[in-house]
Amino acid sequence: MSAANPGATSPQTVHVPLGDRSYDISIGNGNLAEVGRWVTSLRKVTHVVLISDGNVAKYYQQPVEDAIAAEGIRVTSLGVPAGEQSKSVPTAQSLWEAALADRVDRKSTVVALGGGVVGDLAGFVAATMTRGLDFFQIPTSLLAQVDSSVGGKVGINLPSAKNIVGAFWQPKGVLIDTAVLKTLPRREYLSGLAEVIKYGVILDADFFAYLEANVQPMLNRDPAVLQKIIARSCELKAQVVAEDETETTGLRAILNYGHTFCHALETVSGYGEYLHGEAVSVGMLCASRLGEKLGVFDAESTQRQAKLLSALELPVATPKLSETAILSAMQRDKKVEHGKLRFIVPHAIGKVVLTPDVPSEMALAAWREGIEDESA
Amino acid sequence: MSAANPGATSPQTVHVPLGDRSYDISIGNGNLAEVGRWVTSLRKVTHVVLISDGNVAKYYQQPVEDAIAAEGIRVTSLGVPAGEQSKSVPTAQSLWEAALADRVDRKSTVVALGGGVVGDLAGFVAATMTRGLDFFQIPTSLLAQVDSSVGGKVGINLPSAKNIVGAFWQPKGVLIDTAVLKTLPRREYLSGLAEVIKYGVILDADFFAYLEANVQPMLNRDPAVLQKIIARSCELKAQVVAEDETETTGLRAILNYGHTFCHALETVSGYGEYLHGEAVSVGMLCASRLGEKLGVFDAESTQRQAKLLSALELPVATPKLSETAILSAMQRDKKVEHGKLRFIVPHAIGKVVLTPDVPSEMALAAWREGIEDESA
Repeated sequence: MSAANPGATSPQTVHVPLGDRSYDISIGNGNLAEVGRWVTSLRKVTHVVLISDGNVAKYYQQPVEDAIAAEGIRVTSLGVPAGEQSKSVPTAQSLWEAALADRVDRKSTVVALGGGVVGDLAGFVAATMTRGLDFFQIPTSLLAQVDSSVGGKVGINLPSAKNIVGAFWQPKGVLIDTAVLKTLPRREYLSGLAEVIKYGVILDADFFAYLEANVQPMLNRDPAVLQKIIARSCELKAQVVAEDETETTGLRAILNYGHTFCHALETVSGYGEYLHGEAVSVGMLCASRLGEKLGVFDAESTQRQAKLLSALELPVATPKLSETAILSAMQRDKKVEHGKLRFIVPHAIGKVVLTPDVPSEMALAAWREGIEDESA
Repeated sequence: MSAANPGATSPQTVHVPLGDRSYDISIGNGNLAEVGRWVTSLRKVTHVVLISDGNVAKYYQQPVEDAIAAEGIRVTSLGVPAGEQSKSVPTAQSLWEAALADRVDRKSTVVALGGGVVGDLAGFVAATMTRGLDFFQIPTSLLAQVDSSVGGKVGINLPSAKNIVGAFWQPKGVLIDTAVLKTLPRREYLSGLAEVIKYGVILDADFFAYLEANVQPMLNRDPAVLQKIIARSCELKAQVVAEDETETTGLRAILNYGHTFCHALETVSGYGEYLHGEAVSVGMLCASRLGEKLGVFDAESTQRQAKLLSALELPVATPKLSETAILSAMQRDKKVEHGKLRFIVPHAIGKVVLTPDVPSEMALAAWREGIEDESA
């Protein structure tokens, strides 16, 4: 246990306040073993449709299935291939049909066991099967734990657009076990940390300082520190989502800090070249340099982010890519309104502002200046 | 104008009270011409995805498109083949992709122009495209006007089950023009009247008496009488839905009066043999005879229904079908809980009760006694 966090390994709960759609996130170390009792403590459950992917299933499907079945609950286990290509219409259809073939009904409950892909896909199946089933999430990647576990965004991709078909469908509960992160590939784990850092930059300077002070425990996946940073990330995201549940007021847009550059980078480099968190890392630094150019952010704060991201082995340099392609990708971003580029720009560590009407040349300059050696 | 309804041809509004999902149904004769102004009076609309089917499109797509475009709104018109087979995953996918190809975004609005199939399908596309688009309905069949325009049930079929994938997605407004019923095939029009009669039996004896007194104007599609019976049907359905929006308390089940027998009849006779309202007609009389057997309903009230249904050229006799198949279909009904048959049983014209634990032999006897000539 980290000295900075006495007692942090006892499980803790983060409440997500959404009126009659409120729910709790239970965070602990080893609490996956309690999943059966946890589910029955929250809802009367008689039939669970457990959806997982191959990578996660090999470690955790059987124990989760057993723990749920031990409560006298019938379990239908459905698997999908790991990877983004499972967030598709054909995969959703195969899940709808498989659930139906095993007698799903309106009182069935969907449990998602996996990373962001499984959570989004299973959540969409839950939102639409018999016009809406109860839904529980057990996110098993750090990114899913700090991102997908709050917000209720579920959905699938079409060949030409990601996350374009979906719903807002809040879970009835989320269970996070930091112990499952032990089996997460290192690169994927580190990628999740980029989103954790994002919460510090957009909302909480103290949390950012805590992260700076705990680089080594984070690299070691120290359970107490993990629990602390996951809980704080969920709390911060819950605050934002509670004020803008369905993304109507615009407040929720601050969660997209770094993401306009990130999405452009992902698109132009080809999906798969960068993990999402890696592209967020690069994108946050672009947004920070943009803040400097707009005269609202200081270079020292940009450097603090770069130092922390680097220490966590995340990429900080902008790759050399076609600026025309980057600009074109940014102009297709969801935050674009009437063709004007809008960015989430930091004003200080802990404070960001949605900034409309950013000149595209300024945005490109912020991108360009991140390239490590322009003369190379 | 019917003497019984002075002034009924001036448009009227039925309010559907669902908290922040409340909306109005505008009912008139010839009000389709006002569709552009109607939409813009309810929401700021800049882009409409207009979804229709071949049968309806040939009469009404162009005028609706023109009226909407006249308000400066960009219109994307998408068509699907008429018929239940369009309520499918592949059709939904083609609509998602076509809308996306014509630059749908979060501020786009879906307008369904057609009968129940188009309303359910377009509503499902609206509920899921970019996690939920504003949705307006222009039901063009009598059945859709009195049924699909209230309740928010949208969805598609899987090969093995109807309406199994969907959502509750309330429209922002519904426009009903009684004049469009002129182009509805007679058999389909009469089928819609069965659901109108259903509202009288389950909730409103005075309305039932009004229907008995207005058989000829109904057969003539008298606009004033049509407006009256559509408005009253919507009001009655709205009362029920307001108290049980997502079908959780069980109250909404009374809308299924006659429908357990009806669904069994549709399944066993093969979809298409009976129009839905025709099967409802047969089913209501089975449920009424079941009420007699249970000692809660009198034979005279069964006969009043049979007389009214017959006068409107709806079938009243049970067809000869395998009783084993009928029973098996009833046991798969959504109202079945733990294998027990549950029926909506009338206690009087204007009052029905959800009745659990009905012996299957009694249900079959109520079915069998509707066969016209058992010796034949």
